[in-house]
Amino acid sequence: MIPKGFRLASVAAGLRYHDRQDLGLIVSTPFHGAAGVFTLNLCQAAPVVWSKARVQSGRAILVNAGQANAQTGEQGHKDCRKMAKSLSKLLNLFPDDILLASTGIIGQPINMAALEKALPELVDSLSPEGEEGFSRSILTTDTTPKTAYARISLAPGFKATIWGCAKGSGMIAPNLATFLGFILTDAPASVELMQNLLREGAEATFNRVTIDGDTSTNDSLFLLSSGAAVTSPFSSGVKAKAFERGLMKVLESLARSLVLDGEGATRLVEIAVKGALDDRQAKLAAMTVAQSPLVKTAFFGCDPNWGRVLAALGRSGATFDPYRVDLNLNKIPWVRNGMDNGREKEVNEAMSLREYRLTINLNVGKAVYTTLTCDFSPQYVTINSSYRS
Amino acid sequence: MIPKGFRLASVAAGLRYHDRQDLGLIVSTPFHGAAGVFTLNLCQAAPVVWSKARVQSGRAILVNAGQANAQTGEQGHKDCRKMAKSLSKLLNLFPDDILLASTGIIGQPINMAALEKALPELVDSLSPEGEEGFSRSILTTDTTPKTAYARISLAPGFKATIWGCAKGSGMIAPNLATFLGFILTDAPASVELMQNLLREGAEATFNRVTIDGDTSTNDSLFLLSSGAAVTSPFSSGVKAKAFERGLMKVLESLARSLVLDGEGATRLVEIAVKGALDDRQAKLAAMTVAQSPLVKTAFFGCDPNWGRVLAALGRSGATFDPYRVDLNLNKIPWVRNGMDNGREKEVNEAMSLREYRLTINLNVGKAVYTTLTCDFSPQYVTINSSYRS
Repeated sequence: MIPKGFRLASVAAGLRYHDRQDLGLIVSTPFHGAAGVFTLNLCQAAPVVWSKARVQSGRAILVNAGQANAQTGEQGHKDCRKMAKSLSKLLNLFPDDILLASTGIIGQPINMAALEKALPELVDSLSPEGEEGFSRSILTTDTTPKTAYARISLAPGFKATIWGCAKGSGMIAPNLATFLGFILTDAPASVELMQNLLREGAEATFNRVTIDGDTSTNDSLFLLSSGAAVTSPFSSGVKAKAFERGLMKVLESLARSLVLDGEGATRLVEIAVKGALDDRQAKLAAMTVAQSPLVKTAFFGCDPNWGRVLAALGRSGATFDPYRVDLNLNKIPWVRNGMDNGREKEVNEAMSLREYRLTINLNVGKAVYTTLTCDFSPQYVTINSSYRS
Repeated sequence: MIPKGFRLASVAAGLRYHDRQDLGLIVSTPFHGAAGVFTLNLCQAAPVVWSKARVQSGRAILVNAGQANAQTGEQGHKDCRKMAKSLSKLLNLFPDDILLASTGIIGQPINMAALEKALPELVDSLSPEGEEGFSRSILTTDTTPKTAYARISLAPGFKATIWGCAKGSGMIAPNLATFLGFILTDAPASVELMQNLLREGAEATFNRVTIDGDTSTNDSLFLLSSGAAVTSPFSSGVKAKAFERGLMKVLESLARSLVLDGEGATRLVEIAVKGALDDRQAKLAAMTVAQSPLVKTAFFGCDPNWGRVLAALGRSGATFDPYRVDLNLNKIPWVRNGMDNGREKEVNEAMSLREYRLTINLNVGKAVYTTLTCDFSPQYVTINSSYRS
C-alpha cells in the first residue's frame, strides 16, 4: 500500500503508554526530497525547531507519542540532537538526515533512556508493511488511525502512489491538539513543487478546520518523496498537475478524518459561507459559526436552533443585513431573509445524519469560504478534564 | 432592600415556562433619569432597538423570559409598540416611558395574547418588596437569581441605595447567552453621569467576562434613578465619587455572580495578565487563555497542565519570549521562565478551590489586563444540547 522506497516501523518504548506502541519511524531509501509546514505558535516545541532547520535533507522521521518536548528549554534541544545522533548511527545516515516530531504533554521532557533503548528494535522492525503499526503509534487521544491513499498516473503506464497518515484529535477548531501529518510518495516531484503544494494544500484543508495560527506547539506536516517511481523528475506540467490532484485528495481525506475523530465528535458539518463582502469577511463568518460552542452543542443535540447561527454571524465582524441572510441545511431552505421558514422538522431530521452541510448566504457580495467542523459532546469535556489527558 | 421610589412585580404569564413566573416589571415613581448600554451584535432584537431609542425617558421596564423577540422582522417591532402601549395605559404613562427587554429563543415572537392577558395582574402586584419575584422571573437557564446591593453616603447623614439584578448564564466567554442587568438607585445622579459611569462600569466588569462585541442579540444593561433619596441632584464632585464607588461594587458583584452561575460552572478563575507589551496584547493574551476550551476543561479537572496555558498564549497574537513567561496559581510559583517549577501537587490542591487566580507575567512590558472565567464541565454541553434549550 505505501509508496515504493519507504519502510515504516513502530515499537512500544514505554515512553508514556504501557500497553501500546508509542514510537514510530519512517525511512526513505532511495530519497528524492522532502517538504514541511509547521505550527505558527510562538511556543514551538524542540522537535519543530529541529525539523524546520533541516527539513529538506530529512530522509527519516522519528515520532514519539506521550511527551511533546515543548517548553523543555535547553534540555529539549539537547535531547533532539541526541535522538538524531543515536538514530543516524543505526541507520548509517547523518544526524541532519533525521527529522523529529513529538506529541503529548507540554513541559515534559522525553524519557531518553527508554527511547534510546528502543531504537535498535525500532530500526530492526522497519518494513514496507509497517504502515498499520506506524499509524497507530503516533496517536494520543485519537480513537482511530487516520490514513489516506491515492494512485496517480504520471504518464501512460507510469503510476505513482501518495500515502498519508495523520493524528489530530482535540476539538479541532478552535483548539487543535497536536496535529501531525506524514505524506509519503514515490513520485519524483521537485522539492520546490512539493513545498509549494504542501503549503497551499495545508491552507485549503487542515487550516480550514482550525484558524490561522491557532495551532499547538508541535503541529507538523511532512511530505517525503523516495522518487522510486519509474519516471523522470518533474517540477511542472502534466505530471505536476496529476501529483497536485493526488496530494489534494489525500490531504482532504485526512482533514475529514481528523474532524470526524475530533474528541467526542459525533457529527461532521461542512459550513459554507456565500455572498460575503470579501474573502476576509467570508472566513470570519464561517469560522465564528464553526467555533461557537452554542452552535456546536446544538449540532450535538440535533436542535434546529438557527438563532444561534444568526447570533454568531452578528458578532463575527462580517457586514450583512440580518434580514437578508438565508440558511440552508443540506438542501432544505431553513431560514429565509433572516427568519424562520417553517422547516423545523425536516431540519431536525437532517441534523441527525452523521454528515451534513450548512450553507449561509449573506447576500451582500460574492466572496465564499468553506470550513469543516464537528459537534461538541459531553464526551469532549470528559476526555479533556482528566488529569493530564 | 430596593431603593426608595421603586416598585417591582412578576407574574406567571405562561409565555414559555408553565411552572414559574416569566414576566417582570420595574416602575420608578418618582422618576429622575435613566441610562442604558446595549449589545454590539449586528442582529439586534426588537426590544433592544425599542429601548435604545428611548432609554432616557424610561421610567418603567417590562421584561419577558422565554422568547428573545430577535430576528422576528416587522412583527417583532409591532409587538414592542403594542406591549408598550398596553402597559402605558395601565400605568398611566406614555408608551415612550416604557423600556423593554426580552430573553429566550431567537426567531420566536412573543405570545402577545398571553402577555397582554397577564399585564393587569402584573401591574396590580407592583410592590416595594417585589425584588425576589422579579429577580427570578427574568431567568432562563440560570440556576439562581443574581442580585447585589450597596449603601452609599452622599453627604453626612444622607444615604442612598444602589440595587442591581442580572441574568446571564451561557458559557460567559466566548459565547455569552443573553445578559440582562437592571440597576436601580434613589441617588439623584445626572443622566450624563449615569450614562458615563454605566458605560465605563460595564467595560470594567461585564465586558471582561466576554469579548468586545461578542454579545448576544438581546444584551441590555439599564440604570434607573428615582431620585427619591433626600439630597440635591449631582453630576460631579464628592457625591459622584461615592455614587461611582457604589455602582462599581454592585456591577462587580453581579459580574462575579454571572460567572459563578455560568452553565455547568463549578469554578471561578480570575486570569490576570501582567508585563504585556501594550494594552491590546494584554487583553488578547488574557482572553485567549480565558476562552480556551482546553484550559477550561483542565480547570474543571483540577489538572495542573500549564502547557495548555502556554499553548494558548503562543497563539494569542501577543508578543513574548516563551522562556521568560511566569505563571502563579494564587501565590504558588507554578511556572518559571516558561518551564515547570515542581509545584504540581500544591497547584492541583489550589485548583480544587471554588475560586482562584491565575497570574501570567509575560515579562516583556508593563501592560495588564484581568478577566474572569469559569471552568468547562460536561454539564455545560448537556444544558446546551437539549432541543431548544
